This record gives sequence, structure tokens and C-alpha cells, in this order.
Amino acid sequence: MKIISSVSEMQAFAEELRRSGKRIGLVPTMGYLHEGHLSLIRRAREVSDAVIVSIFVNPTQFAPNEDFERYPRDIERDTSLLHSEGVTILFTPSVEEMYPAGFSTYVVPESISSILEGKFRPAHFRGVATIVAKLFLIAHPHAAMFGQKDAQQSIIIKRMVRDLNFDTQIIVAPIMREKDGLAKSSRNIYLSPGERNDAAILFQSLNKAEEMIHKGEASAAVIIKEVEKIIHTKKTAVIDYVAVNDAESLAEIAEIQKGKSILVSLAARFGKTRLIDNIIVQQ
Amino acid sequence: MKIISSVSEMQAFAEELRRSGKRIGLVPTMGYLHEGHLSLIRRAREVSDAVIVSIFVNPTQFAPNEDFERYPRDIERDTSLLHSEGVTILFTPSVEEMYPAGFSTYVVPESISSILEGKFRPAHFRGVATIVAKLFLIAHPHAAMFGQKDAQQSIIIKRMVRDLNFDTQIIVAPIMREKDGLAKSSRNIYLSPGERNDAAILFQSLNKAEEMIHKGEASAAVIIKEVEKIIHTKKTAVIDYVAVNDAESLAEIAEIQKGKSILVSLAARFGKTRLIDNIIVQQ
Repeated sequence: MKIISSVSEMQAFAEELRRSGKRIGLVPTMGYLHEGHLSLIRRAREVSDAVIVSIFVNPTQFAPNEDFERYPRDIERDTSLLHSEGVTILFTPSVEEMYPAGFSTYVVPESISSILEGKFRPAHFRGVATIVAKLFLIAHPHAAMFGQKDAQQSIIIKRMVRDLNFDTQIIVAPIMREKDGLAKSSRNIYLSPGERNDAAILFQSLNKAEEMIHKGEASAAVIIKEVEKIIHTKKTAVIDYVAVNDAESLAEIAEIQKGKSILVSLAARFGKTRLIDNIIVQQ
Repeated sequence: MKIISSVSEMQAFAEELRRSGKRIGLVPTMGYLHEGHLSLIRRAREVSDAVIVSIFVNPTQFAPNEDFERYPRDIERDTSLLHSEGVTILFTPSVEEMYPAGFSTYVVPESISSILEGKFRPAHFRGVATIVAKLFLIAHPHAAMFGQKDAQQSIIIKRMVRDLNFDTQIIVAPIMREKDGLAKSSRNIYLSPGERNDAAILFQSLNKAEEMIHKGEASAAVIIKEVEKIIHTKKTAVIDYVAVNDAESLAEIAEIQKGKSILVSLAARFGKTRLIDNIIVQQ
């Protein structure tokens, strides 16, 4: 595995791969890798000849009051994991390399970035879209993998790819979960044992939502109320939102119609740790 | 000359050119071509194997009160001009092809886009950066040509290329002028004969600025005042701004220092027609 930290070197290497007819698969990550990331890497290996994994904790997608500084990092462990996964290139640029002095050009997803996560993290998707655009222009991938856990992120990236004419296929892989259903996340390490226990309620509440939809409950308000009730059985949980949206367009849904793909998503805090989760239900 | 109006066809053709080792030069235009455009095309021919010229009157860079609807168009004349210039591809997408329903991802140059032109045309450079990013992702050029007349545009595009890691070289070609010094512009056709006559004052005023700087005048305020005084000798002229900036960073300059490249730029209206012009002076 080649480790590259310079943008121009990465760009030249990607160009060389392209020229020699190799298909490039990119897995953008912030490191502290878990099974979710590894499933993306394995998916990338299936669809490409060369797998590029980027590890970059992207400051522009964190608000000043968020956890950029304390976001967990373990580059040695990550490196050895990626090595054993047969990754072609690990791309680990510095913040200065990605955001040189005077940086002032952002990619801004204007409509669907102000709802759901965007409502609670106003500049978040501007940071995400900008760094993903940069990574696409640096690694020039034929395909890029994203996790379904960040459901809104995937939709925004797909929209960006369409709007700005990137020639990259976006592949979204299913959420990986712990045994009790908690979605795998680098942030789970923040949880105290008690909070960790309680956090399993999120997936249980989403399962209930799925069951209700399958049984014919059409009112989003009724479903949201029930999901909130279940989460509130855990005293440590503070809900940011529970929402029911069209899984393709993210349009808000009041009445669930047959034949639609429904995204039930939520964010909740356990102590200082903010977790997100979601489920897609075919009605 | 091949004429392409579909994004995917243009993208596939550019990819093919790249794969066969051809250097691509792009000249983005809004059509109604004049000598300024032709000089860019000739420059593109010098530095590339295949020249792509795009003609697209880009709605997102016009404000609602501006001249998008009446912007001059003459695709037949343009096509025959490009043909005789030995252009490889004319790319002429429709508005719907470039901005499909639900379009919502913009490239936003955040700092240097709110001064000079940006102060008078607030969303202008968001539209320019977005369409240029799209054209770069569609035509994947090794080099792209821009005219010095839009001085701030060139600087913003160079910044965008650096910030978002486009692998495209930006080449800026000198302003082409009419015999009396008026900068060539598709918009000159709007001018009445009297306005057309008066508009020559812009270049004369810039020449005076250059002369003053060469003679050692260091105060930007003094230079600006003199330029304004000269323009105001024409009754039809209404000045939007006259400004003195660092030609690289666009930083505002109060005292001109030796060894710097100085941009003296202006915008003025003659009747309903808004014209811009500028001069770079090496002090």
C-alpha cells in the first residue's frame, strides 16, 4: 500500500491509473476506521481495480462548538487495517495541504442542506460537499463509496455529482451495526457504558417505525410520536429530531403513500455524544 | 468541427481525447463572438491539440434586473466563425441541460467575490464559478482561456482552481480593443452612436492612470479622482466604481508600492449599457 500526503502526487498517481485503464474506487473517511468503513472498502474492491482510501478529519464540516479537536484519531491502527484490506493507496493530507492560506471557494448545496442534519449543523454540508468535491478532483474516482448512516450526506453528494457534472458513480452501502443494533460510528467511543447501553434504543425505535409502516400506518406524525416515546424511555437520551422523508428527494412527508421509499431518520444526544441513525422502508 | 449539445456526449468525447493523449484547450464563452474571443481561441490552439469552445449564456450569472434575455445571440455567425478558426468542438448545451430541475449545488467564491464587480452584481461570481466548474468537469481541459477584460473573474477562477484542486491551467489573454481603445465586448452593440463615441473615454482615463503611476503618483485616491474626472467629461457616463487593487490578490491599495502589479479597474454605464475595463500597471 502506497501512502500519499501530497495533493499533486495523489493527482498525478490517479491520472496515471486512469491512463493505464484502471478503474479507481474512492472511500473518503475521517479515519478511526470501523466495520462500516471496511464494508465500504470491500465494496470498492468489487467495483474497481485500484482502491484509494482517504483519511482526513475535515475541519470545515465541524462547527466551532463541535468535536473537531477531540474527534478520535489512530492513524497507525488505521494504516495496518487498510494494509490488510488490500487497499492500493492511503491518502492522508494535512489540513494545510487541503486548505491553504486564503482558501475561499466552497461547494454549497443550497436546498436540501438546511433540513434535518443541516438544521442542527448549519455549515456542515457546505464542508462535506467542499471536501468531497476536492477529493473527487484529486483522486478522480470512477466510483466513490458512502455509508447509508449519513443518509442526507449521500443524497447531497449524489445531487452535487449531478449538478456539477462529476463523472463519478456514487455507491451507498448499508449501515453496519453492533450486536444490539447500534449503528457503527467512530463517535460511539465517546459513550459512557451507561450511555452505550441506552443508545441501542435508537435502532429499536426505528424498527418500530418500520413495523408501523408495514402494518399500514400512514401518518408521519403518529410514527414520529411513537419513535420519540420509545427513545424517551431512556433517561440519558435527548432528541434533536425524528423525521419522515422521501428517501430519494428528502421531501417532507405527512401521509405515507404506497410504492414510495421512506427514510425515517433521527439524531439524539447521549451526554455529550450526538448520534444519528436511520432506516429506509419500502411501503 | 463537431457540434455537441449533450453534457454526457461532451464528457465522453473529452475523456476519449484525454485517453488518446491529446491536450484539451477550453474557451468558455457566452457567444456573439468578437476579436477578443478569437484571440483566446488562437491562444488555445497554440497550447493544445483539441480546442473546445463553449457557447452558453449562463442565466445564473445574471441578476433578475440584468440583461440575460436581451444578451446578444447569433449562433449561426458564431458557428461559421469557429469553423474557420479550426475549432475541434463547439459545445452548445441548453439551459435545461446545464441546470436540470432541482439544481441546487453552487460553487461559491466567498471572499474576493463581494468587492468591485461583486459589490454591484452580488450573485454574479457564484454563477460564474458554478458554470466554469461545470464546464471544467464536462470538458476536462488541460488549459482554459479567459480574457483580461474580466480581471476579477480570472482571479476568482484561478483561486477556484487552486482551492478545489482542478487540474486545469488558467491562461489569461490581453484585452482586445477597438481602434479608439474601447475594449471589445459583446455588449458594445447595445450602445447608441453617441454613447459608443463617449465610451472611448474609459480607455483614455485608464491610460491617464497608467501615466500617473509611471510618473510616481502613489496615492490611489488621487489616481481614482483623476480617472473619475476624465470619465465625467462625457455627459452620458455614470460611474459604478473606479478602483486600484493589487493585481494578484485584489487587495485594496491606498499607497502604491514599487515592484507591485497594480490593477486599475472600472465599471461605468452609458445609457442602459454597463461596461467594464481595466489596465495592469507594473510599478
